[in-house]
Amino acid sequence: MIRKTDRKWIERTAELAGMGMEMGDGGPFGCVIVKENRVIAEGWNRVLAENDPTAHAEMVAIRRACEVLGDFQLNGCELFTSCEPCPMCLGAIYWARPDRVIYSATREDAKKAGFDDEFIYREIPLPARERKIPFDSLPSEECRLVFDRWLKRENKTMY
Amino acid sequence: MIRKTDRKWIERTAELAGMGMEMGDGGPFGCVIVKENRVIAEGWNRVLAENDPTAHAEMVAIRRACEVLGDFQLNGCELFTSCEPCPMCLGAIYWARPDRVIYSATREDAKKAGFDDEFIYREIPLPARERKIPFDSLPSEECRLVFDRWLKRENKTMY
Repeated sequence: MIRKTDRKWIERTAELAGMGMEMGDGGPFGCVIVKENRVIAEGWNRVLAENDPTAHAEMVAIRRACEVLGDFQLNGCELFTSCEPCPMCLGAIYWARPDRVIYSATREDAKKAGFDDEFIYREIPLPARERKIPFDSLPSEECRLVFDRWLKRENKTMY
Repeated sequence: MIRKTDRKWIERTAELAGMGMEMGDGGPFGCVIVKENRVIAEGWNRVLAENDPTAHAEMVAIRRACEVLGDFQLNGCELFTSCEPCPMCLGAIYWARPDRVIYSATREDAKKAGFDDEFIYREIPLPARERKIPFDSLPSEECRLVFDRWLKRENKTMY
């Protein structure tokens, strides 16, 4: 469901996307996180500026919003992004749990601009060994045991 | 394909996972990034320490490795992680492009320990509007135009 005020925030994501691109910070992507109708954090792609492949607009905005709120959860927040999130950002959104997400351009638009998020979407459901980046499993007692220790811990915070 | 030296690095990820958990930094997850048989970066889950839902062990290690290399790509690197990556970390791995990934515990093990990555894996292929977190699309000329501006830019770095 689209709300009347949504367009204003989506237009802001386009401004951020353009600004970040002009500064050479990274690709043309912007993100705004709103709580109770006020912006609490903004982000734009900073992959090139920071040599950080995880610095997508949504990741930058989520991290800033969590810093502002002093919380690792974005309950009561709305996330606006200039383009449909890639799988990494989609995952981050699920861990941060905002109330809703509104995106503008689609992954097809992104692909035409040279950002092939769709390729990663196709790789995810493949069996680990059939992926373009080879994934192998090496079971170990040590890695399993650390989960047992976690389960036995008292007063732990779940996230 | 598992190599002889892999077990050593996987054991190190279990140590990091245990250490991070004991410090209260976050869940029991560790990651090591190796290049030419030397560790270039290590990470453990710091979601609670940093109030950052994106601070999974793999994300922390990828960001540190890129900082060390001064590059947003991890060519020639191997990523070892104590547990199968969640969709966010899987996406980050695809953007960072290490040569290979070796994980130990599986997503089923993680679920038993209370980390339901599988839930996010199931949400990804769903149509945007059927997801547990509602996703809506709001097409806008501004967001499309910023891609045109990107395509027309000269000397741009692709990532």
